[in-house]
Amino acid sequence: MHTAAEIVQKIHQGETTAQTIVQATLTRISQQDEHRNCFTTVLNSSALEASAEIDRKIAAGETVGPLAGVPFAVKNLFDIAGTVTLAGSKINQDHPPAKQDATAIARLKAAGAILIGALNMDEYAYGFVTINHHYGVTPNPHAPSRISGGSSGGSAASVAAGLVPLALGSDTNGSIRVPASLCGVYGFKPTYGRLSRAGAFLFSSSLDHIGPFAQTVQDIATTFEVLQGPDHRDPICTHRPAISPNLSGDIEGMKVAIATDHFAHGMTTTVAQALEKVATAIGAIETVTLPESARARAAAYLITASEGSQLHLARLQTRLQNFDPATCDRFLAGAMIPSSWYIQAQRFRRWYRDQVREIFSTVDLILAPTTPCPAPRIDQTTMELEGKVVLIRPHLGFYTQPLSFIGLPVLSVPVYLPGERPVGIQLIARPHDEATIFNAAAALEQKGIVQANIVPS
Amino acid sequence: MHTAAEIVQKIHQGETTAQTIVQATLTRISQQDEHRNCFTTVLNSSALEASAEIDRKIAAGETVGPLAGVPFAVKNLFDIAGTVTLAGSKINQDHPPAKQDATAIARLKAAGAILIGALNMDEYAYGFVTINHHYGVTPNPHAPSRISGGSSGGSAASVAAGLVPLALGSDTNGSIRVPASLCGVYGFKPTYGRLSRAGAFLFSSSLDHIGPFAQTVQDIATTFEVLQGPDHRDPICTHRPAISPNLSGDIEGMKVAIATDHFAHGMTTTVAQALEKVATAIGAIETVTLPESARARAAAYLITASEGSQLHLARLQTRLQNFDPATCDRFLAGAMIPSSWYIQAQRFRRWYRDQVREIFSTVDLILAPTTPCPAPRIDQTTMELEGKVVLIRPHLGFYTQPLSFIGLPVLSVPVYLPGERPVGIQLIARPHDEATIFNAAAALEQKGIVQANIVPS
Repeated sequence: MHTAAEIVQKIHQGETTAQTIVQATLTRISQQDEHRNCFTTVLNSSALEASAEIDRKIAAGETVGPLAGVPFAVKNLFDIAGTVTLAGSKINQDHPPAKQDATAIARLKAAGAILIGALNMDEYAYGFVTINHHYGVTPNPHAPSRISGGSSGGSAASVAAGLVPLALGSDTNGSIRVPASLCGVYGFKPTYGRLSRAGAFLFSSSLDHIGPFAQTVQDIATTFEVLQGPDHRDPICTHRPAISPNLSGDIEGMKVAIATDHFAHGMTTTVAQALEKVATAIGAIETVTLPESARARAAAYLITASEGSQLHLARLQTRLQNFDPATCDRFLAGAMIPSSWYIQAQRFRRWYRDQVREIFSTVDLILAPTTPCPAPRIDQTTMELEGKVVLIRPHLGFYTQPLSFIGLPVLSVPVYLPGERPVGIQLIARPHDEATIFNAAAALEQKGIVQANIVPS
Repeated sequence: MHTAAEIVQKIHQGETTAQTIVQATLTRISQQDEHRNCFTTVLNSSALEASAEIDRKIAAGETVGPLAGVPFAVKNLFDIAGTVTLAGSKINQDHPPAKQDATAIARLKAAGAILIGALNMDEYAYGFVTINHHYGVTPNPHAPSRISGGSSGGSAASVAAGLVPLALGSDTNGSIRVPASLCGVYGFKPTYGRLSRAGAFLFSSSLDHIGPFAQTVQDIATTFEVLQGPDHRDPICTHRPAISPNLSGDIEGMKVAIATDHFAHGMTTTVAQALEKVATAIGAIETVTLPESARARAAAYLITASEGSQLHLARLQTRLQNFDPATCDRFLAGAMIPSSWYIQAQRFRRWYRDQVREIFSTVDLILAPTTPCPAPRIDQTTMELEGKVVLIRPHLGFYTQPLSFIGLPVLSVPVYLPGERPVGIQLIARPHDEATIFNAAAALEQKGIVQANIVPS
């Protein structure tokens, strides 16, 4: 399937039309989604109408945006006007349809992109697997017996399967980066507060981020540019000046280090090789230690469970039996966490943030694995890592949780190792320095070190 | 006893010396404090040394600060170098002596003020009465069978008894304003984050403020000026430009309103009369409603108990029997509050803050009672208000809690009603607009409407 940039170019050059692209997309989905199980809603008629409008504008010589004619889909926690926002739940089926599009959707549409539908996820975003009791499993496009990761599993899988070139997801503890890693695509979680969350059904407010999935660094960067900017609908969305990504790949002078300690243990050989390949290509020799990262992960758990349970308290009290059994117990446990623990976790968070800020006074980019392993089997509950048996589901966030905990921008880049299943490596920068990440990723992509794994159509 | 301004003037004019003032202060304390029970520590020798140094400087023509020779004392939760910071507890007796003065003390000393000692309080600031299991009751200087209020009861009583002209306290839910009201002195709680809390033993970090007690608006203003300014030791202390209090009393154009709803019910006739007297004098005719203030009070309780218990968790686990029975149960209950309640309270807080901010777009100053009644008896546990029996201790914060909850600056001004016990009225301004409060208080003081009640020496 074409990338977003290719689609835009072909439409502009008259080689194809938005309607042709969208019709082909809808056909692919109707043929494949029964077994892919990425979509929970497909917006056939509105997508076709929007594509006809793009073609009309181009024919009339009117201005169209930088994503004109590009199909995209969203995790089903984003509000789509006229559609019920499921957030992976059965309970939300009883909600009225959303009155207005989420800001992120509105901005992509304004840039000419065409919304195709809504995508499967773990219930209320509380999971790393996209095994949903109500809407089923979204299998890994590269290996149907394996998981796509989660909670934005439908988003990552829809891009990896070649159904759409762009998708939106959300990341609280790794929910963009984990499925990007397991599906072999780019998944980007910008700095906390950078992109508007207005119209996204939240999970844990002090940790929630939104971001894109794509096949190329260029597509990630273009989507980020379209999504950025302050939004009066979201008080958390800070008024930072917009940035213009530099994709030259000229990384002369960039100081890159590998995260050690917590981030250097517990991975499979494939992941270790992928990390080494990226580190060598980008010239990362030194290591840095993010102190107490295991504690950061524990604190992220406490905050997630506390804030998530607060959000769902009324539903837990009245509709417990309608929760997915996998999330139900987590939310119930969260509702019983003492406030003193939550406060302690938030206090630790400020300390940890200051420690890590200090590290960025000497380095520009930090490398760490995204997941400890490639995609596990759907029926697998444990795995052995360095001689220790661990539970797979929580362990998938081992390397991602300590970073979103303090809102750092992170791109998970897909690494190509012949004969291996895809894995991702995290490129981590200081807050609001997304530009450095784009440039480093562009350099790695130009050298062929990182590359999305898309199922051939 | 003289006010701070009078002392400064008399010393400058050569009518007295700092040593004479301090010696007289120490003599008063040694004669009276056995029954006043304001002080837990008296710093005889260091106070005399400091006063000699002031006199030496003046004699040598050196510059001295705006409070040169003025005795002051502090609630015993402020660090005094070389002294153990008790915070009203027995447990803290085992702590090592403080290594350095609290920032507020250091700034007052730098301004020439002379530290006399440390003052009684409710244990760990968790109370409105200053009935301390370990250090005894601080009786009301105007009526020894009655309470001084708390938790900064020693601070208010030491000023009302004429032992010192200035004292420092702290206010989480009303702990400066409540004792100021019951003792008939000025008590000032500036905007949250305005004054450095470095070196103060905290109680509930997101609610704690520090501030002064004095006999006149002028003394409050001078102390505020000396205390203000950023402090690298306190990350909460914001970098606002310093303000110069205007004490002209020219309130032409100032829009003043009376808080209604929650703030218009539950007070005794004395308090209602005092409020009316102030309102008439200042020209307040209209009323404003701070919506959901009862809920604000409930949320302030939850946050206080949660943050306080988090702070004391280790002590609760190991030294429960050494707590004051009055605070022990409160802290234990706080340790069991679910995090989801705490988070809900913090979310409500942002809503309430925005609602009240809106009100300040049309008014400059809001009036409300400080306490629902004058000082109750020490042995009294309930009282009848508007036909309803209420518990006195928590009820003392009825009007103060919803305001500190969102960090508004408030001065409690003492109202003089012949034949009645003192009561205070709160002058409330928008965040960081302490200047309006000073000016309004000066106007009321000039008209003789408000006036401190000091025991004649």
